[in-house]
Amino acid sequence: MADEVILLDYWPSMFRMSTAKIALAEKGVAYEYKETEPWVKTSLPIEMNPIHKKIPALIHNGKPIYESLIQLEYIDEVWFDTYPMLPSDPYQKAQARFWGDFIDKKFYDPAWKVWGTAGEEQVTAKKELLEHFKTLETELGDKTYYGGDVFGFVDIALMGFYGWFKAIEKFGEFSIEAEFPKLSRWTMRCLERESVVNSIADSDKIIEYASVLRKKFGAE
Amino acid sequence: MADEVILLDYWPSMFRMSTAKIALAEKGVAYEYKETEPWVKTSLPIEMNPIHKKIPALIHNGKPIYESLIQLEYIDEVWFDTYPMLPSDPYQKAQARFWGDFIDKKFYDPAWKVWGTAGEEQVTAKKELLEHFKTLETELGDKTYYGGDVFGFVDIALMGFYGWFKAIEKFGEFSIEAEFPKLSRWTMRCLERESVVNSIADSDKIIEYASVLRKKFGAE
Repeated sequence: MADEVILLDYWPSMFRMSTAKIALAEKGVAYEYKETEPWVKTSLPIEMNPIHKKIPALIHNGKPIYESLIQLEYIDEVWFDTYPMLPSDPYQKAQARFWGDFIDKKFYDPAWKVWGTAGEEQVTAKKELLEHFKTLETELGDKTYYGGDVFGFVDIALMGFYGWFKAIEKFGEFSIEAEFPKLSRWTMRCLERESVVNSIADSDKIIEYASVLRKKFGAE
Repeated sequence: MADEVILLDYWPSMFRMSTAKIALAEKGVAYEYKETEPWVKTSLPIEMNPIHKKIPALIHNGKPIYESLIQLEYIDEVWFDTYPMLPSDPYQKAQARFWGDFIDKKFYDPAWKVWGTAGEEQVTAKKELLEHFKTLETELGDKTYYGGDVFGFVDIALMGFYGWFKAIEKFGEFSIEAEFPKLSRWTMRCLERESVVNSIADSDKIIEYASVLRKKFGAE
């Protein structure tokens, strides 16, 4: 039986819409992409995600899988014979999961506040976000990728946010290239991969989208 | 080489101190327990956890592993031949991870506010926490354990919070037994296991501890 893989997503979603796409591309798995605005009640996502009611959902042969990192592990396990993304050693695997979890838990909140709020709230969020970037710059160090020489789990998790980087820099008034040169060169290396370039959202469109929301949120 | 396993913990920690203990007990792995107050700077945890600076840490042959669920996966992978905790099927595994993640992300914040705050803040937190309990009651349904017939990953993740249940019920003024009968019977079943009884903190001591903190936080 051929696999039926559907990705339910909304293009500017900050829930790392690109993570599953990059992973499926690296594995060479074809999928159907369905654009779904989170506030429009289509029968599919409601039926499929009664708890979190959020995208993206990966639907494999009718079964939904939620949460970017859980999707990443699932993809790595199901299509295990092509491009393994997690190391096989349990300790290295725990390390990769630790950094994936760090990105998963720490980025979303300060990141959206940097583009979506103003004043004190934005200043505090920016400080927090820069600390997280600093931590990730330090962890990367002189390695090519987070796991060493091979593009893998942590790289995919972090590049899932890349579409938002330029908007965060613009509204937060800082430069990743100037402040985090290693991280910046790492993004350039990742962007050389077809799997990444074809999966991430357009930074300029995200900036436009964020500008509209900033006004809506009363941040300017 | 014999395994050296150290568990660095602080007994009333809400970061599910019991999760790793229950897992190690089910696997039959002996460990050394080191009590560490989080605010006392001993060289060990500082050296070992430069990022999160939080307990519990599992240290296996000198290598530290952080975060309850990551520890759980690590333990399951290293001691894979005794009592597997995650299902082997990738989709069932993703489901178990989804519920582990739900517990990991959703419980801590409203739970501590229920015992540690008062007024509006406590009311809102209680409402949120009861919704999460309701979700978990529904997901459990008529199953014996979250994964079906066998005590496993999700059970261990949730029972890691059990030591705090009585304090949450007392200060939140509600009864799990009355409002969530299935969940209540499930806790009873889990408490029949030696691995659980020997790993969870004493509920009465937790209530005393929470009472002291409530006063300190100005909640009464």
